Amino acid sequence: MPALSNPHHARFMARALQLAARGRGRVSPNPLVGACVVRNGHIIAEGYHANFGGPHAEIVALKRLGKRAKGATLYVTLEPCSTWGKTPPCTDFIRQNGIKHVVIGCQDPNPLHAGRGIRLLRQKGIRVTANILREEAVKLNEAFAKWIKTQMPFVILKMAESLDGKIATETGDSKWVSGKAAREWAHSLRASVDGILVGKNTILKDNPRLTARHGRFKRTNPWRLVLDTKAQLSNRHRIFHQSGTTVLVCGESYLNRAVQKHRRSHISVMPVKLKDQKIDLRELVIKLGRLGVTSLLVEGGGETAASFLKSHLVDKIYFVIAPKIIGGKHAPTAVEGDGIRLLKEAKTILRVQVRLLDRDLLVEGYC
Amino acid sequence: MPALSNPHHARFMARALQLAARGRGRVSPNPLVGACVVRNGHIIAEGYHANFGGPHAEIVALKRLGKRAKGATLYVTLEPCSTWGKTPPCTDFIRQNGIKHVVIGCQDPNPLHAGRGIRLLRQKGIRVTANILREEAVKLNEAFAKWIKTQMPFVILKMAESLDGKIATETGDSKWVSGKAAREWAHSLRASVDGILVGKNTILKDNPRLTARHGRFKRTNPWRLVLDTKAQLSNRHRIFHQSGTTVLVCGESYLNRAVQKHRRSHISVMPVKLKDQKIDLRELVIKLGRLGVTSLLVEGGGETAASFLKSHLVDKIYFVIAPKIIGGKHAPTAVEGDGIRLLKEAKTILRVQVRLLDRDLLVEGYC
Repeated sequence: MPALSNPHHARFMARALQLAARGRGRVSPNPLVGACVVRNGHIIAEGYHANFGGPHAEIVALKRLGKRAKGATLYVTLEPCSTWGKTPPCTDFIRQNGIKHVVIGCQDPNPLHAGRGIRLLRQKGIRVTANILREEAVKLNEAFAKWIKTQMPFVILKMAESLDGKIATETGDSKWVSGKAAREWAHSLRASVDGILVGKNTILKDNPRLTARHGRFKRTNPWRLVLDTKAQLSNRHRIFHQSGTTVLVCGESYLNRAVQKHRRSHISVMPVKLKDQKIDLRELVIKLGRLGVTSLLVEGGGETAASFLKSHLVDKIYFVIAPKIIGGKHAPTAVEGDGIRLLKEAKTILRVQVRLLDRDLLVEGYC
Repeated sequence: MPALSNPHHARFMARALQLAARGRGRVSPNPLVGACVVRNGHIIAEGYHANFGGPHAEIVALKRLGKRAKGATLYVTLEPCSTWGKTPPCTDFIRQNGIKHVVIGCQDPNPLHAGRGIRLLRQKGIRVTANILREEAVKLNEAFAKWIKTQMPFVILKMAESLDGKIATETGDSKWVSGKAAREWAHSLRASVDGILVGKNTILKDNPRLTARHGRFKRTNPWRLVLDTKAQLSNRHRIFHQSGTTVLVCGESYLNRAVQKHRRSHISVMPVKLKDQKIDLRELVIKLGRLGVTSLLVEGGGETAASFLKSHLVDKIYFVIAPKIIGGKHAPTAVEGDGIRLLKEAKTILRVQVRLLDRDLLVEGYC
């Protein structure tokens, strides 16, 4: 149950959530965390977790205050850690600085730690109010939460289509289905994930760079991954000549061919075993999770989207729907593959939300 | 400019619009009109146009009051008529009943009459306030407005699709893509139009009855129209055995075959000339307009939708988007046909609005 006693709690927590989001794209595989310290209804210090390995949000805020933190209230979006990681436990530091009340957005999603920080604080005589703006706080770290629990990345499928479900014309024209605002949003999304994946056909048709050009968050580019089962792509595509990490994912038996073809570019080749002549996507996703990829953005095309959906690997979808009609019996659609036989087998999207990106609709939901 | 002087105007006009909607599906080819008479801030009488040929909304309301209307204010959604039609001019009756102030939603869309009623009332010394909730009042009669100006019906394209644009699975399962609330809404929509049209394939695949079963508005069923260019459909389909009017639309040269095939059922056959081996849809729509069809609902499938769009005959679209993914490279989509070559040729949908019908999205827009 959220504590409703203090009407200011939500306001300060909203600010802490805002601060947390500043770390987007830079703290993985850590969670995003923001904090503010409040005394007499005023924020006297703020902090957020800005870089992987760097100080935690609450420590940043408290260090700014020194002894002035004594008796104040700390708002922090995520339950403070109670164990030694790359930094000492935050619970100790909070107590040492004389904080008398800690207001928390949500519990640590790590099942090994969940609730432990709260218990420790209470044992030390510090008042704790939990679950303020819990839903927002949980959503902020939905990718981290999945990864920490399953060691698999949170997989987001993002497609841009016309009102009639087409992602390009019959002749392959796909620039652009969606408008400028939606494309800018897509670059922010890219900047917030650890990996971006497309299928071979998308490389052949669109020759994308898969960089996070217009992202609001400065970061190094996320990994770019290309599914190319039989290592058929040549080395001339733009994706193989970008700074940062590009990974060609091929079938195990095509490893030599892939290495041979791309020996002149600085890309990595990741062999994955095949299943029904195709990359075993579950295997790939597990591999990526082990390498610290907490979130993977699948950007199509329709065959790749269908494969991920069929393998039950998609956690979240974003469909950008442009208010235009492309038509065409043979125009490519957002999700292709074999499809289903009966409507009752259709994948249902849950917790659907819609908003406008200029004139395009953005549909968000969970699988 | 809307008159903003009286905050009550919008409230009473909203009530009059509500009343007007009660005539939906029963007054065509007349417009929907509602009225209420107000004195001292209270509604003392209400009325609406309930049946084609029946008394106009303002007359219904005024007749309920008799002499008590003197000095009151009349709210009417549409400019009162100033000419003899099936009934005497309303402007005369308003004056005779001593109404001192007339508040109007919007002008008569008929270019021959627009503004004439307002001028006449003013000439008679009656105060007139126009354009209260104008946008809503105009929208209420958008179909009538097009028909009265062009003698062509207002064409609405309605499709129900999955999030990835499919209207059925690859095997043809289409019951149901959308949920119960959306299907009930679709029946209300059917009940509000003069004609419902589908293509031959929809009859073959879904064998629909095309009745307005769950409509909120009691009415006789709208005309059912089937496009069957070469008169290939047999007489066994359900649509040919419903009460009310069913029209088989075929190419002129296939008239005899159509009449022969359907000689045992009570349907009408409408021959239309061909254009590129297909029904000339513009010709058909013009014919329907001349017969008093002010609004035509096109319900698919994808080929029929594409043909109407390509002929630039669609005025308004409704896309119901169910939050599910069907997939399938060969699954039928909402708009098929030849499609376009370049994205810049895509049909742009204007004034897009989205609302929820339970868990389905309803996208409304204009072409």
